Amino acid sequence: MAELVEVTDPDDPRLRDYRDLRDVQLRKDLEAEHGLFLAEGEKVVRRALESGFDARSFLMAPRWLDGLADVLDRSGAPCYVLSEQLAEQVTGFHVHRGALASLERRPLPSVESVLAGARSVLVLEDVVDHTNVGAILRSGAALGFDAALLAPRCADPLYRRAIKVSMGAVFTLPWTRLPEWYDALPDLSARGFTTVALTLAPDAVPVEEAVAGLDKVALVLGSEGHGLSERWQESADRRAIIPMHEGIDSLNVAAASAVACYVTARR
Amino acid sequence: MAELVEVTDPDDPRLRDYRDLRDVQLRKDLEAEHGLFLAEGEKVVRRALESGFDARSFLMAPRWLDGLADVLDRSGAPCYVLSEQLAEQVTGFHVHRGALASLERRPLPSVESVLAGARSVLVLEDVVDHTNVGAILRSGAALGFDAALLAPRCADPLYRRAIKVSMGAVFTLPWTRLPEWYDALPDLSARGFTTVALTLAPDAVPVEEAVAGLDKVALVLGSEGHGLSERWQESADRRAIIPMHEGIDSLNVAAASAVACYVTARR
Repeated sequence: MAELVEVTDPDDPRLRDYRDLRDVQLRKDLEAEHGLFLAEGEKVVRRALESGFDARSFLMAPRWLDGLADVLDRSGAPCYVLSEQLAEQVTGFHVHRGALASLERRPLPSVESVLAGARSVLVLEDVVDHTNVGAILRSGAALGFDAALLAPRCADPLYRRAIKVSMGAVFTLPWTRLPEWYDALPDLSARGFTTVALTLAPDAVPVEEAVAGLDKVALVLGSEGHGLSERWQESADRRAIIPMHEGIDSLNVAAASAVACYVTARR
Repeated sequence: MAELVEVTDPDDPRLRDYRDLRDVQLRKDLEAEHGLFLAEGEKVVRRALESGFDARSFLMAPRWLDGLADVLDRSGAPCYVLSEQLAEQVTGFHVHRGALASLERRPLPSVESVLAGARSVLVLEDVVDHTNVGAILRSGAALGFDAALLAPRCADPLYRRAIKVSMGAVFTLPWTRLPEWYDALPDLSARGFTTVALTLAPDAVPVEEAVAGLDKVALVLGSEGHGLSERWQESADRRAIIPMHEGIDSLNVAAASAVACYVTARR
């Protein structure tokens, strides 16, 4: 079981994984360098462990220990116990969800293994906002998608904010990074998927029509600001649109993806 | 045309409408007391004016004047021009979208006038998050809903953050507050709407089935945390669910509302 270690010094080097959680750039560097990621909140920490991720350590105030007692029982990682005030000093914000865990990243699976047996796959091009990545993966998982592929510039699904918004779907929905961008969609077509790009292009057909009767579908979504690149729009097998009321600028990417996943999953 | 007034003193009383924009409670009190609301960013300011709201004043750095020249030309309100640094001192944050406008609230329309001619209506119970209110109204407007009704405890659609997330849909989609909560749904039924409550209740049927063939529909959505109250679930004509994959905790309210609006608009 996890050893409980009381900590009273905010500069204790053992707390290194938890420092300055609001500094996105610093966190990206630190998490990449050490191959770790952070989970926040009892429910999310529990899901990470249940999904097979190994804890490096836990950090929490005393009042959160009981809720995670069973999780701590099954882990060999140390649990740093400190006051809420001290936790705030270390992390740089008020940890109102209480429990934090630092977890080991695992090597990303191959595209082939992520696609094995999958019938509905999300493909994200340059979704750079962690909230949107989390929301899209949550909707995909909830609406029956089997896997997700992320282009090299997409935001990290294991960034704390993405994990939280996804409600842990990033732990359960199989996903990986695409090794390259340019031929990603033709490669998927060669693997038997019909790639359907969500776009406002003039030749786009309603998404319900675009996916009707298809067996293996890869639903392709672009960035928040500019949508899909020309290359991905052109190299997709089909271009699709969510029919919208005139005069409104489209849905945001999280709303559009929820609608498109719903329609595609029920094709 | 708007008089350009150069301001160099951050304590200038004429800037009162723009103070401390990050302080939600203070802003709520100030905006209610003075009957104003704030719009942020060229596109949103433009939409507010084009939708017929009257400006009390504008506030912007010199480099934003050109983009809004036509809007300023048509307004009689003063435009306070100040450096970006000074704007930050007044508002409490870096105004990266540049233009701000303070606008006069109008009396809320009656439920009757909002419902006149409407066939698809959103009804929000206790959606307390400004981002969610904005996102839901944006999706409703984009997907063909005609109006929205908000229960007394819903967040304010004219709060700066809600306006921004809605992309101005709060200016164009007719909406008002329900005068009371308890009998709101039976009242809508009496006006000829079938009220369809989105819920995880055991007797809920798939939303597609719940709305099939209906003429006038009121789609009823609950709060982020606990969903709809017992009273509203029981007093709705029908209870509906978005079919989901097992083991996932539901969609977030913005994603769920996008899917439900899409399905309902295409009934």
